[in-house]
Amino acid sequence: MTDTLVQNWGNVPEAWTRRHLLGLEGLTAEEITLIFDQAERFRAVLMQGDRKIPLLNGKTCVNLFFENSTRTKTSFALAARRLGADVVDFAAATSSLGKGETIIDTAKNIEAMQVDAVILRHSCPGTAKLLAENIRSHVFNAGDGPHEHPTQALLDMLTIRQRFGTIAGLTVALVGDIAHSRTARSNIWGLKTLGAKVILCGPSTLVSKNWEKLGVEIVYSLDAILDRVDVFNLLRIQFERQVVRPFPSTREYTHLYGMDAVRLAKAKPNVLIIAPGPINRGLEVTPEVADGPQSAILDQVTNGVAVRMATLWLALGKT
Amino acid sequence: MTDTLVQNWGNVPEAWTRRHLLGLEGLTAEEITLIFDQAERFRAVLMQGDRKIPLLNGKTCVNLFFENSTRTKTSFALAARRLGADVVDFAAATSSLGKGETIIDTAKNIEAMQVDAVILRHSCPGTAKLLAENIRSHVFNAGDGPHEHPTQALLDMLTIRQRFGTIAGLTVALVGDIAHSRTARSNIWGLKTLGAKVILCGPSTLVSKNWEKLGVEIVYSLDAILDRVDVFNLLRIQFERQVVRPFPSTREYTHLYGMDAVRLAKAKPNVLIIAPGPINRGLEVTPEVADGPQSAILDQVTNGVAVRMATLWLALGKT
Amino acid sequence: MTDTLVQNWGNVPEAWTRRHLLGLEGLTAEEITLIFDQAERFRAVLMQGDRKIPLLNGKTCVNLFFENSTRTKTSFALAARRLGADVVDFAAATSSLGKGETIIDTAKNIEAMQVDAVILRHSCPGTAKLLAENIRSHVFNAGDGPHEHPTQALLDMLTIRQRFGTIAGLTVALVGDIAHSRTARSNIWGLKTLGAKVILCGPSTLVSKNWEKLGVEIVYSLDAILDRVDVFNLLRIQFERQVVRPFPSTREYTHLYGMDAVRLAKAKPNVLIIAPGPINRGLEVTPEVADGPQSAILDQVTNGVAVRMATLWLALGKT
Repeated sequence: MTDTLVQNWGNVPEAWTRRHLLGLEGLTAEEITLIFDQAERFRAVLMQGDRKIPLLNGKTCVNLFFENSTRTKTSFALAARRLGADVVDFAAATSSLGKGETIIDTAKNIEAMQVDAVILRHSCPGTAKLLAENIRSHVFNAGDGPHEHPTQALLDMLTIRQRFGTIAGLTVALVGDIAHSRTARSNIWGLKTLGAKVILCGPSTLVSKNWEKLGVEIVYSLDAILDRVDVFNLLRIQFERQVVRPFPSTREYTHLYGMDAVRLAKAKPNVLIIAPGPINRGLEVTPEVADGPQSAILDQVTNGVAVRMATLWLALGKT
Repeated sequence: MTDTLVQNWGNVPEAWTRRHLLGLEGLTAEEITLIFDQAERFRAVLMQGDRKIPLLNGKTCVNLFFENSTRTKTSFALAARRLGADVVDFAAATSSLGKGETIIDTAKNIEAMQVDAVILRHSCPGTAKLLAENIRSHVFNAGDGPHEHPTQALLDMLTIRQRFGTIAGLTVALVGDIAHSRTARSNIWGLKTLGAKVILCGPSTLVSKNWEKLGVEIVYSLDAILDRVDVFNLLRIQFERQVVRPFPSTREYTHLYGMDAVRLAKAKPNVLIIAPGPINRGLEVTPEVADGPQSAILDQVTNGVAVRMATLWLALGKT
Repeated sequence: MTDTLVQNWGNVPEAWTRRHLLGLEGLTAEEITLIFDQAERFRAVLMQGDRKIPLLNGKTCVNLFFENSTRTKTSFALAARRLGADVVDFAAATSSLGKGETIIDTAKNIEAMQVDAVILRHSCPGTAKLLAENIRSHVFNAGDGPHEHPTQALLDMLTIRQRFGTIAGLTVALVGDIAHSRTARSNIWGLKTLGAKVILCGPSTLVSKNWEKLGVEIVYSLDAILDRVDVFNLLRIQFERQVVRPFPSTREYTHLYGMDAVRLAKAKPNVLIIAPGPINRGLEVTPEVADGPQSAILDQVTNGVAVRMATLWLALGKT
């Protein structure tokens, strides 16, 4: 059955011409839609008993993670394996970089091992682009500091499209820790490209007026926008990235920006709640809401594997 | 040859109806025997040149280890790979749990990646059961605190069955660090279910009278039971779990409970020596005995892979 | 295409009779040449789109690394995967060795899991040999302290052969940190066996006169040998292994032993620059030279995977 599936899958659409996935800035609506459409096909495979479709047999991906990650790294690894590719971890934390090597030298070494793709996470914005300019392997940005995290935004948006059928015309609020969020930035690029209206909502210490330059609305009161938002994307408070606490206490944050049943009751009847996870239960969102029917938090995780399968195949699957 | 092997392997026996392997408490003699019989078939495959039998192609297992492990984790990984399943490590120590996520959320996220099995080790008793109640993926308990470690007990007992042909009627002594041992607890459930007599033997600081409630005999002198025991299972002194040292010195422990040539000479001629490892040479057992003909310590390791292949296939192999 | 490739590959040459790869000391010129010839065939596979040739399907390799490594470990893992073998990491740092187990017991346990090959890195010279004497699995030395690192030397020498067509008659200078270098030692054995002249060049604190016993020339001035050397192998200054700094400052080292454009201009026109990496740019070698046409630093990395595929197949591929 797997063999038939592979044979009938078809070629990478000619409309896909990119070697890398560095960010959503600059991707066209057609390109994003193309990823979504392929991701839906891979999602259907995922929901079967035999979840493999070895379209990338013989290809090798290297996980090059300079920051801790579990779910993104695992999700990429599962995506690659299910396409039949091999995945090798390059333990960056304990790597030769501690011996004085530049990141470009590290990447060129990995490339020289005849590796097809490098999946990179790094604390420094622009590192994915830097690699892409210096190696022939395909580069996938799994998060470069506060800059972009394109596959996270793609899975967020695919989840929205699954619920509403489209993204154009929707109002999407990104709530919370915008300042430290590469997810927010990637979402803004993608959502605006697809025709959504984007609201950033959070305390002023986490949501700077500067973001207005990206064509978004800034709102400091969650209660003020409850009845006009179609999708709330509740960003995680990233305590680990904060030097000075940006609000007096987590209780105050929850009081002003936590999504609970009371607020949900004032929202649109078909409002969608998503969150990039891991969620802090009781902080950004109450368990009642996180596990309720408006929430698609776990759908996002499944979509994450599907989106990564799609982007890997589009880049590596050209024959 | 592999293909023929797979085709002729047959289906999972209908008598096996469990989704999870949480512990040996509650497993029937028929169920344990069924695992043993399948494990013997997998052991025969292991002893060949090509040790793969891809009965679980397309399945994915996640290693979710919250405590350090090398041999159990490696053994499960090898078992899954040899069945053709993919294995992905979810690095629990550096995981999102450090970001405030609950273990059920972590597990639900892993499940949402469309994973078939979660192999769990955790310091808290009952965690495997908690997961099994909350996710649809198959859960395999690879040790939950001092509670149970079912695959370790299964491999211990399979090793006994290989030597004696049966377990019913044998007298098995678990010697040493009972207090900290999930292996002891799982062995007690399994051995009693299969009709063995179980003796717990060790210093009173490590062997509480409370264990008598489980239907076992408590003995504080190893020398007193040497001539009436068929199997000595020499548990490792787990210094890493002890807050207060339970005996004055390791020399005293060895003097009273170490298995050496002198004690072995007083044991039954066909006595079997097993130990869950890693062994402390010269402490629980002398090198002479550990490497001698009565010892089946390395057979246990091979049986470990076979038993894990059997339990994975029984749970995941239903079509 | 992969299937045809496998079918037409042929058997392991009868001239290869070794079970292990412990070092280059003792290997004959015929054996080294045999590895090179097979490595060239595997290199051709690597340069294709589908880089797999599953000659070792069903085999299992264990990475047993007691010292940090990224490139050697990754290179071995890629080599094994591309041959269709499974690779399992045995996390030695967090392993049972911390629980008091001997390394031989650890290895015997790994062997009892019916593993085919153990790839070992250890800080203690002779550990690979010790394992080979005690287990039936094939042992590959990935570096044993300052003793040997045979696959590194093989890839260095294969790179030389690719450039010059032969090794006999060449003059090869190993420059820099000889004292801490297992790579130097393996290169000396291999190069001399193949008929090259070997010069060791570096500060006297890093190059002892004792090395003359191995039949090499000791020179303390790099400038004095520039015009009579065919290959400069620029060893990395291993700060992490040094207790007392062996030269006043890195600036002084670079002044005396760094390879730069000025020195290169005085060298033979077809001189070859190699370096085991990771390189300290600006210390042992300037970026200009490292990235220039005389350098084959990245070819070495590709050859590393090819050489490891060759040695794995030669040892494990006998039917």
